[in-house]
Amino acid sequence: MPKTIDIHLVNRPDGMPRESDFAAIERSIPDARDGEIQIQNLYMSVDPAMRPRLSRGQEINQPIGGPATGRVTQSRNPAFKEGDIVQHRLSFRQYAVCDGGGVTKLAVDPALPLTVYMHVLGNGGFVAYGGLLEIGRLKDGEQVFVSTAAGSVGSIVAQIAKIKGCTVIGSTGSDEKAAWLKSLGLDVVINYKKEPIRDALKRAATKGLDVYFDNVGGDHLNAALPRMNLLGRIPVCGMVSAYNNPGALSAPINTLSNIIYGRVTIRGFTADDFPHLRPKFNEEMTGWVKSGRIKYQETIVSGIENAPRALIGLLNGENTGKMLVKLAE
Amino acid sequence: MPKTIDIHLVNRPDGMPRESDFAAIERSIPDARDGEIQIQNLYMSVDPAMRPRLSRGQEINQPIGGPATGRVTQSRNPAFKEGDIVQHRLSFRQYAVCDGGGVTKLAVDPALPLTVYMHVLGNGGFVAYGGLLEIGRLKDGEQVFVSTAAGSVGSIVAQIAKIKGCTVIGSTGSDEKAAWLKSLGLDVVINYKKEPIRDALKRAATKGLDVYFDNVGGDHLNAALPRMNLLGRIPVCGMVSAYNNPGALSAPINTLSNIIYGRVTIRGFTADDFPHLRPKFNEEMTGWVKSGRIKYQETIVSGIENAPRALIGLLNGENTGKMLVKLAE
Repeated sequence: MPKTIDIHLVNRPDGMPRESDFAAIERSIPDARDGEIQIQNLYMSVDPAMRPRLSRGQEINQPIGGPATGRVTQSRNPAFKEGDIVQHRLSFRQYAVCDGGGVTKLAVDPALPLTVYMHVLGNGGFVAYGGLLEIGRLKDGEQVFVSTAAGSVGSIVAQIAKIKGCTVIGSTGSDEKAAWLKSLGLDVVINYKKEPIRDALKRAATKGLDVYFDNVGGDHLNAALPRMNLLGRIPVCGMVSAYNNPGALSAPINTLSNIIYGRVTIRGFTADDFPHLRPKFNEEMTGWVKSGRIKYQETIVSGIENAPRALIGLLNGENTGKMLVKLAE
Repeated sequence: MPKTIDIHLVNRPDGMPRESDFAAIERSIPDARDGEIQIQNLYMSVDPAMRPRLSRGQEINQPIGGPATGRVTQSRNPAFKEGDIVQHRLSFRQYAVCDGGGVTKLAVDPALPLTVYMHVLGNGGFVAYGGLLEIGRLKDGEQVFVSTAAGSVGSIVAQIAKIKGCTVIGSTGSDEKAAWLKSLGLDVVINYKKEPIRDALKRAATKGLDVYFDNVGGDHLNAALPRMNLLGRIPVCGMVSAYNNPGALSAPINTLSNIIYGRVTIRGFTADDFPHLRPKFNEEMTGWVKSGRIKYQETIVSGIENAPRALIGLLNGENTGKMLVKLAE
């Protein structure tokens, strides 16, 4: 009987996860029973949001959950047929069997690589699109600041803002990423490892900020708050700085009083806040990607056994663009 | 020629203001020229928001600005006539002369004392009403927490929330104020000087919080953030803790990451955010005050020369309810 590998969490990490916190467990490929489907996973992603779940939520000695794209290889469920390309959260495993709950069929554009549905046309792109346009209520020509601007969400936020005629300031942690962001047309790119973000942003944001798309919290949020224009908006979809350092939670926020007279809105959100935007997103973003107006970078690691290393690498900032693990052709 | 007194700021305070930062300046009462009105001030208020302006914004050796209610004593402006009751911001003086800009005529209900238009039926009441219902999007029966709940804004917020059938937790800094809040029908009253607010709120908010009406920031905000329910809202109209202690800004906020998964909105606002609510507020609040459903407390100090001491007393929490200075009958 053919064997398959799942990656289990075997130890809760304290701070940065280590490879020894994970184990590759071999088992037989299970068949689909009545009402079930069997999925061969093709790609899975590793994401900053996985980190807090390793400390709380993810069961020990079980495969880790997360976004994956696969092909239906057996179907005993009338809603699916063999060969369907699907997305689901049964990640960190080569094969998954389930009853189809939480599994979405993808309408794949044959002119695009399958991987784009894991980032720019997937949840990351949707969070960027809805977070900027709906939660951030972006207006054409506004002043925008994006943290982790070279990341899989930040880079899409920055490019949508440029399409909307905005002045865009981005921050990133390396000269290489900064160069890529300049090539995307960002107006100012800050390498926050070379200069305190507060000083750099004060100098860059000569017209203040109407929208700060916050991916990190901490020092970046402290730097942005005093720069916010009247009625400014801060959509918050992640605080990477907090995930690996829950004690310090990076810098505490000591500039929050700026929201009062500026009448600023800070709003935490997820993709669940704007499901109605999905059809418009699919259409608009597919067009932007195909026309080259939205560019992306991927870092693709091969093999299920390298998934833990990919996640650790992502948390250490070793990726360029979206970090994916390829599990099969 | 009759004399009148203005209170000038003569020295920028560092931390808590002192009486020597102010001076009483005598001058002749100026007459209204063409297009102008002369106003005899009857009441002025002292407010926490005055503190930051003393450090920045308020000119030295000039009368201090702030809310005042007065009677028109001369009018050479067709929009006003002698005897009109008006509100304006030419405060800390017995008489004011101006061209009528920024002066609003009051429609006074003869069954109510004039002072209510300085608090429950004035800007404080309006900020409470719009902040809770419009910015906080309060729904009947929700879980509500109000800081400085015995203050002129907080006490109205708490009572409106009770009218709307909510469970209301309030915090205050003395047993005397706590007793008054219990008499208003609040479900739980916390004396934050007796127990860390974080522990007390964790115990009190058994069903989490849907709305935290934030008047103080700092420790209170840190205590509330982990308690927020999904899609919770935090209207912020003041951070009293920051005004006198800009260095410490009370406790820095180290719990902000709670807004992400909770999809919480924090929004700074002023009365300018909901001018359309004014007619509905006037009607509804007048009814609530007349019927006794909204109660209030006032601390009234007499005499222009006591205005600086009243402001300092307010900043030290010596008032019960709204702090006013009576300038004339």
